[in-house]
Amino acid sequence: MYNFNYYTPTKVVFGKGTQAQVGALVKTQNCRKVLIHYGSGSVKRTGLLDQVKASLDQEQISYVELGGAVPNPRLSLVYKGIELAKKEGVDFILAVGGGSAIDSAKAIGYGVANEGDVWEFYDRKRQAEGCLPIGVVLTLAATGSEMSNSSVITNEDGWIKRGYSSDYGRPRFAIMNPELTMTLPDYQTACGCTDILMHTMERYFTSGGNMEITDSIAEGLMRTVIVNAKILKEDPKNYDARAEVMWAGSLSHNGLTGCGTDGGDFASHALEHEIGGLYDVAHGAGLAAIWGSWARYVYMDCLPRFRKFAVNVMGISEEGSDEEVALKGIEAMEAFYREIHMPTSLKELGIEPTEDELRLLAHKCSIACKGIKGSARILHEEDMYQIYRCSL
Amino acid sequence: MYNFNYYTPTKVVFGKGTQAQVGALVKTQNCRKVLIHYGSGSVKRTGLLDQVKASLDQEQISYVELGGAVPNPRLSLVYKGIELAKKEGVDFILAVGGGSAIDSAKAIGYGVANEGDVWEFYDRKRQAEGCLPIGVVLTLAATGSEMSNSSVITNEDGWIKRGYSSDYGRPRFAIMNPELTMTLPDYQTACGCTDILMHTMERYFTSGGNMEITDSIAEGLMRTVIVNAKILKEDPKNYDARAEVMWAGSLSHNGLTGCGTDGGDFASHALEHEIGGLYDVAHGAGLAAIWGSWARYVYMDCLPRFRKFAVNVMGISEEGSDEEVALKGIEAMEAFYREIHMPTSLKELGIEPTEDELRLLAHKCSIACKGIKGSARILHEEDMYQIYRCSL
Repeated sequence: MYNFNYYTPTKVVFGKGTQAQVGALVKTQNCRKVLIHYGSGSVKRTGLLDQVKASLDQEQISYVELGGAVPNPRLSLVYKGIELAKKEGVDFILAVGGGSAIDSAKAIGYGVANEGDVWEFYDRKRQAEGCLPIGVVLTLAATGSEMSNSSVITNEDGWIKRGYSSDYGRPRFAIMNPELTMTLPDYQTACGCTDILMHTMERYFTSGGNMEITDSIAEGLMRTVIVNAKILKEDPKNYDARAEVMWAGSLSHNGLTGCGTDGGDFASHALEHEIGGLYDVAHGAGLAAIWGSWARYVYMDCLPRFRKFAVNVMGISEEGSDEEVALKGIEAMEAFYREIHMPTSLKELGIEPTEDELRLLAHKCSIACKGIKGSARILHEEDMYQIYRCSL
Repeated sequence: MYNFNYYTPTKVVFGKGTQAQVGALVKTQNCRKVLIHYGSGSVKRTGLLDQVKASLDQEQISYVELGGAVPNPRLSLVYKGIELAKKEGVDFILAVGGGSAIDSAKAIGYGVANEGDVWEFYDRKRQAEGCLPIGVVLTLAATGSEMSNSSVITNEDGWIKRGYSSDYGRPRFAIMNPELTMTLPDYQTACGCTDILMHTMERYFTSGGNMEITDSIAEGLMRTVIVNAKILKEDPKNYDARAEVMWAGSLSHNGLTGCGTDGGDFASHALEHEIGGLYDVAHGAGLAAIWGSWARYVYMDCLPRFRKFAVNVMGISEEGSDEEVALKGIEAMEAFYREIHMPTSLKELGIEPTEDELRLLAHKCSIACKGIKGSARILHEEDMYQIYRCSL
């Protein structure tokens, strides 16, 4: 097992009606002016934005607002947010939405708190030395950005999707009311469940040395998400299932399921980032489409853990060779993805890259990873190409 | 399930050699003077205290020191620490030790940051409005105080043991090197494992409504501790087992295993506090001595969860009535305690209270709980007496 740091300072306020606490929570931050940042108009349609504003008004907190964050949030909106925040003297950002709004808020926060071009952090040119404090009212269980140190931004100049991680970006608080996720389309719910599973799976499939307690937490979390994703497919307004998935989303990416590991694999994420950057697909769906091909490509290099996953998460019988059990686990996971209507190939995802595009994807992925990626198996550009090709 | 708040701001630095980072970590706190607070001389004998001082010296951080925190840490030393800290202008407390040193440090921190008598917080007369910032170098996996909001102090005037919880008291950082626990006597290791288990069991046995994800994390944690406690009995210098238990200790009491519950039962803790206050026994051993009697007294009121515990934690077969399965789970837990040489009765704990003393224990416990305690079953003074009596 490896030494590790664990740091999750975000205050979570979880449960029914908790959005009413937003004004009081912002007030504890002693800020002068808030930027309310959100995505599409859904927070307007549902009335959530009005509730948030009413709560801020009640505490006499002044604010400006900026909507428009889209899935795979764009750098251009981040620049716009930075300019607005500076002009208005904003010293706290309140993200109302899902991962897109939160990630965009983090990028704006870095841009305001640091000189120079914010893209340089995402392009791994330098490190941030601060971030405006951020709060979250979560409306989508998926990315875990509400407790994580990471954010992902897409630069429209070249459609380059890059992540940046810094503890400065961890939100101060996250209001999580599962009721707010009940009206999501089934597809988004399933994408979210996939993303949550993948955040733990990326940390689970490593070259070895994971702690048993981390494994047992990770396995319990994955089982919980799988069970409840199926419940939500039939009964999307099931509060308890929404709550299980929402809390799993935060725990899956706040560091807990990675304690003692080598940092995890994250090759599936890297491979998906290039797909998401070029084709603008939903992140969760992109992960589901690529995962099976990745798993079949690497599992023999990581057999004990694929076997353990099959038995402890997918409920596969221990009988049979390690290879047989491991493969059954991969098949069971793919069957689960199909059951919740997630794609298990690029074609099912709705894209059919040409040979040149496959090479381009692999090349961009290799550049983004500075040559190699992975833990279960170290991937080079040629490996990335092979996985993309297998996922057609 | 219940709404919940989750707040664990403590930065954990976990693994081999991490105590060398203490100076750098204290430096990030921007403090002027540190109070190093520790317990018995063990941190001197092992050389840890010298390492800590050398690390502080290297960062040119000035400090004073106060040793002498004992198991069931005393109010008189807390008063001494408050006086010393005020006189010396201390603005950061570094606890080097286990739960006793940390709890004592928290109480000193409350005493310095608030006017009036610090005991009033523990006596539930008023709430703290702050606490000096605290850091920890942990030498004992047990109480989870390194990440928790709670502390327990014993007032020698009447030998009253009381806990107080406030988020102000959560440590800023915790350095956790499992190597530092390798020289512990077997008895202390077993007491620690018992305390860790009990922190999760107290949250697990409730009147209902627990989240599935919380249950799965709790069950995984308990299985991990049980497996590794047995390993440590045979092989006390097993690093991996020490690490599993140490990390379980923090997660068991930082709030994670209570998310979505009604707050937990904690009757066993309440019953033990009176024993610990009167007889000054080791906390973990006291818990083991009382738990079986508590469990048999309450399990019929909380049958589904005792059954689940039996199957998912103790590995009992699902065959048989709920009552049979639940009882087998309780028996298996008691057998585990015996296996690691923990007492399962007051006699084995080394105390034989008279009838009057049993009544006194129950009366003191009832007063401390303001009349009632528990979730699996609500206990009144007569119930407390019956459980004490059954545990003879």
